[in-house]
Amino acid sequence: MSFLITGSIGIDTVETPFGKREDVVGGSSIYCAYAASFFTHVSLVGVVGDDCPPTMFDLFKGRNVDLAGLEMRKGSKTFRWHGSYTGSMNEATTVEVDLNVLAERAAKIPDAFRDSTHVFLANTHPALQVEAIASLRNPKLIVADTMNLWIQTQHPDLLNLLKKIDGLVLNDGEARLLTGQTNLVAAARQVLAMGPKFVIVKKGEHGSLLVSRDDAFVLPAYPTEQVVDPTGAGDSFAGGMMGYLATQEAFSLDALRRAIAYGTVVASFTISDFSLAGLQRINAQAIQERFAALKDATVF
Amino acid sequence: MSFLITGSIGIDTVETPFGKREDVVGGSSIYCAYAASFFTHVSLVGVVGDDCPPTMFDLFKGRNVDLAGLEMRKGSKTFRWHGSYTGSMNEATTVEVDLNVLAERAAKIPDAFRDSTHVFLANTHPALQVEAIASLRNPKLIVADTMNLWIQTQHPDLLNLLKKIDGLVLNDGEARLLTGQTNLVAAARQVLAMGPKFVIVKKGEHGSLLVSRDDAFVLPAYPTEQVVDPTGAGDSFAGGMMGYLATQEAFSLDALRRAIAYGTVVASFTISDFSLAGLQRINAQAIQERFAALKDATVF
Repeated sequence: MSFLITGSIGIDTVETPFGKREDVVGGSSIYCAYAASFFTHVSLVGVVGDDCPPTMFDLFKGRNVDLAGLEMRKGSKTFRWHGSYTGSMNEATTVEVDLNVLAERAAKIPDAFRDSTHVFLANTHPALQVEAIASLRNPKLIVADTMNLWIQTQHPDLLNLLKKIDGLVLNDGEARLLTGQTNLVAAARQVLAMGPKFVIVKKGEHGSLLVSRDDAFVLPAYPTEQVVDPTGAGDSFAGGMMGYLATQEAFSLDALRRAIAYGTVVASFTISDFSLAGLQRINAQAIQERFAALKDATVF
Repeated sequence: MSFLITGSIGIDTVETPFGKREDVVGGSSIYCAYAASFFTHVSLVGVVGDDCPPTMFDLFKGRNVDLAGLEMRKGSKTFRWHGSYTGSMNEATTVEVDLNVLAERAAKIPDAFRDSTHVFLANTHPALQVEAIASLRNPKLIVADTMNLWIQTQHPDLLNLLKKIDGLVLNDGEARLLTGQTNLVAAARQVLAMGPKFVIVKKGEHGSLLVSRDDAFVLPAYPTEQVVDPTGAGDSFAGGMMGYLATQEAFSLDALRRAIAYGTVVASFTISDFSLAGLQRINAQAIQERFAALKDATVF
């Protein structure tokens, strides 16, 4: 089993009620890869510009992450995002965004990565996600994320993607936008009819919802008293989930439930500090302990 | 063990995306009493005016609800509420409200009810809730609800109430308003410091959160595909919870968790139809089956 993540790499500036961090490492593939690396070997595919500080990937030193798919493109600039959170911090306000290199062609998936069994296609243009799928030789489980922009502007490409993936991960607002359903269970069921075998709706501080043909699973977020920076929570969730699934011999709905719980746990560490700091200070044991604590906080 | 509920009785007009119902039975004590009556004997205390149709309480016929504390006050008018729900239906917009008899003196608690062991004080002026507590001879568990109005205008009376109750039930917006904390776990912990032994934060479609000195418990709402009318969900939740607790020999946090799950289950039936119709068509067995289904939908 081997896990491939394709997604964005960014230089973020983030403001929350707890402070501001400028030019910190971010992007979906970074959070997802770091989160998954607690569980399994990770193959990361992404692209940055030549403005990217060479030290930015030091955080992967000593971790089980193969950066052979990391392209540093000459003459291009790295994706930058400046976001701000207020109040219950459930949603970021984008202060500024420069797609830069993300608006160019996608990073190439190295040949050695094409045998990956477990694949997470983080949010990008659905046509590029379909392209990535086409290059895989041995996929067992393909899960994708998407966003409002593609739902609104690339609907045919998105519908094409939905027929080629096993699972879709999206947030509550996106699920409602994609289906026109306000009820999230009904929305998820409607997405199922578009192709994927399961749909996971992320609800921020309210946890997540899994719907498959035969199953509905609801899990609250880990009850934490302090959220410092929600950036990357969804991608850490996906990373923890996919990382755990990649360790399982066979896919099952029970394994998927546990995977969602692991994703929830890893995300709870991510949001406890800015950027990757919350993940950088934990280890596999801390994850196991909080997994047990989450179980304890939800059992009746 | 015996359960006393004091609260409002109203004539509601409700509009949701599924239709409109005029002059239907409503009010916190009605929902709460009906919900609790699936579990235990209920003593209901409330007041209506002489405009109240005598058939309004037919719904309690054959149920385990003692209406000796129901006062029909001559020359007064019944509380009326007209609410409307749109979108995700998490919050009602009040179109019109006439407090009428609720703005007068409270209904008297009959002497025979003063030995009740389990008491739910539905939302009303906190000074009246304190008055009700003073009349109890043998309380084992007192739980109260409150609302924005009292948090904003009757703060000293509310703080006094909080010192005299075992548990407070309030919704997420109220918890934030009462404490100034946006994080709900932190908000609940802050409410604990004001007196109650446990705090339950209701989050509508996102379920509920229980915080006590030694415990945090999070439970999602039952994953239902169709919400027809959310009116009374919170009071049904409280009724199911208190009704179950009144059947338990001793109070424990484990029993409280199960009670919250029962409250969640009963509320899921309430919101499946207008007014009390969703509760009127079920029985104890349907509740047990959905309790098992909720367990199944949340276990990992």
